[in-house]
Amino acid sequence: MLTYDHKIRVRYSEVDRMGFLYHAHYVDYYDVARTEALRMLGTSNYDLEATGCMLPVLEVVSNYKKPAHYDDLLTVRVRVEELPVVRMVFRYEVFRENGELINTGRVTLAFMRSDSKRACRAPEQLLKYLRPYFPK
Amino acid sequence: MLTYDHKIRVRYSEVDRMGFLYHAHYVDYYDVARTEALRMLGTSNYDLEATGCMLPVLEVVSNYKKPAHYDDLLTVRVRVEELPVVRMVFRYEVFRENGELINTGRVTLAFMRSDSKRACRAPEQLLKYLRPYFPK
Amino acid sequence: MLTYDHKIRVRYSEVDRMGFLYHAHYVDYYDVARTEALRMLGTSNYDLEATGCMLPVLEVVSNYKKPAHYDDLLTVRVRVEELPVVRMVFRYEVFRENGELINTGRVTLAFMRSDSKRACRAPEQLLKYLRPYFPK
Amino acid sequence: MLTYDHKIRVRYSEVDRMGFLYHAHYVDYYDVARTEALRMLGTSNYDLEATGCMLPVLEVVSNYKKPAHYDDLLTVRVRVEELPVVRMVFRYEVFRENGELINTGRVTLAFMRSDSKRACRAPEQLLKYLRPYFPK
Repeated sequence: MLTYDHKIRVRYSEVDRMGFLYHAHYVDYYDVARTEALRMLGTSNYDLEATGCMLPVLEVVSNYKKPAHYDDLLTVRVRVEELPVVRMVFRYEVFRENGELINTGRVTLAFMRSDSKRACRAPEQLLKYLRPYFPK
Repeated sequence: MLTYDHKIRVRYSEVDRMGFLYHAHYVDYYDVARTEALRMLGTSNYDLEATGCMLPVLEVVSNYKKPAHYDDLLTVRVRVEELPVVRMVFRYEVFRENGELINTGRVTLAFMRSDSKRACRAPEQLLKYLRPYFPK
Repeated sequence: MLTYDHKIRVRYSEVDRMGFLYHAHYVDYYDVARTEALRMLGTSNYDLEATGCMLPVLEVVSNYKKPAHYDDLLTVRVRVEELPVVRMVFRYEVFRENGELINTGRVTLAFMRSDSKRACRAPEQLLKYLRPYFPK
Repeated sequence: MLTYDHKIRVRYSEVDRMGFLYHAHYVDYYDVARTEALRMLGTSNYDLEATGCMLPVLEVVSNYKKPAHYDDLLTVRVRVEELPVVRMVFRYEVFRENGELINTGRVTLAFMRSDSKRACRAPEQLLKYLRPYFPK
């Protein structure tokens, strides 16, 4: 299993009238943590695009337990539990600095050829970095 | 059942490098359509807040079928299928101008007292506007 | 001179902890009003791009006089005072529903060839729609 | 003079169809860098608010020289050149990792009493942290 923790500080622009991190921004944070997990692996969206592969989002699920506030330093934990074949599932847990779990989420991506816009399998450029995390 | 259609035009700032409406913005659109459905009913977030009631988001689910593009005029259809008791569920369908369904979603809100931050039942200020849509 | 009024309703996601429309979003609104002014003229960013022309932003200036609030229905007035040559200047005034002026702004765009990324002159595809507003 | 450098990585959600950091997001970045400069000083928006002081934005100016791209690690340099009296001016320079200057900006804030909404002077809670940077 792949796990990666990324810290994000809540911006003033992201907080609503109630003083809470606006709910749609958790989805942005998932995306940022996904980028950082790929970087930690040694690859990137740019590398994947260079192989002619796009990763459109199929599904987002987000569950809100407690609010986050302006200037909170959150930890977004991203997990990949299975080696991807035609889809890739990222799971998220968001924690406050005191360790409290405030949000969980799941984002499912597809693999798509950028030229034909047709579904394809996970590219080797991604799999070669993921395999060490999924020993048989 | 309550159904309401609201049109939203995709802004340049909301479109990503692939030329697609960025996935988190559908969640913003759900929120805009929810506001407009309340307005059509004759009430508003301001009215609900005036009764000491907040509606924090508990869960968001969004399923992406096809992309939307810059300047597309989308229709966001919002549905409430049940008279709320302690939670309120809004269901969404997003259509392109040609009628194609491109996204579905579901947002679950709780009712909370703004003073005590404790869960409460749907306020009469909301129910009185909803009841005509849910005849026995 | 070209003048165009476009109405925009302030979204919940755009309002900050003070309950005010967050200052950066005025810049988004300028962009929306610019798109609508081009539509009223009979053209669009897509049409301009099809001629190989991009319009990168060179400068933004925004002056804040009074706040806007959630759900306010604002009028964004966009003005073009001169037929563009190598730059195009859009001027903005933002009004509350009661007619109060709350913000003024100015956005300067350049014309750039999308292939060479070099500066160019305003394309005929735009000028032909603008000329009737600037009689000699 | 006070100078502070803060690094911000460009998010996927912040990039437009041209692949460039969308122009309004520079204004968000200015705000993030301002928060971090206050933190470095030893204070915060929360501390200022606790003294009954708000800092509404009066003016934003932003000049765009070159584009930033997805995943660029930008440095936002924030400068305060004068000890504030009734206004506070923050000046910005944004650099790419290679040191290239891509954007400059200036944001002017006012001091306002949160109770009366009337203009006021810079609070001592801020001045005491700033004075060491402005020796006579």
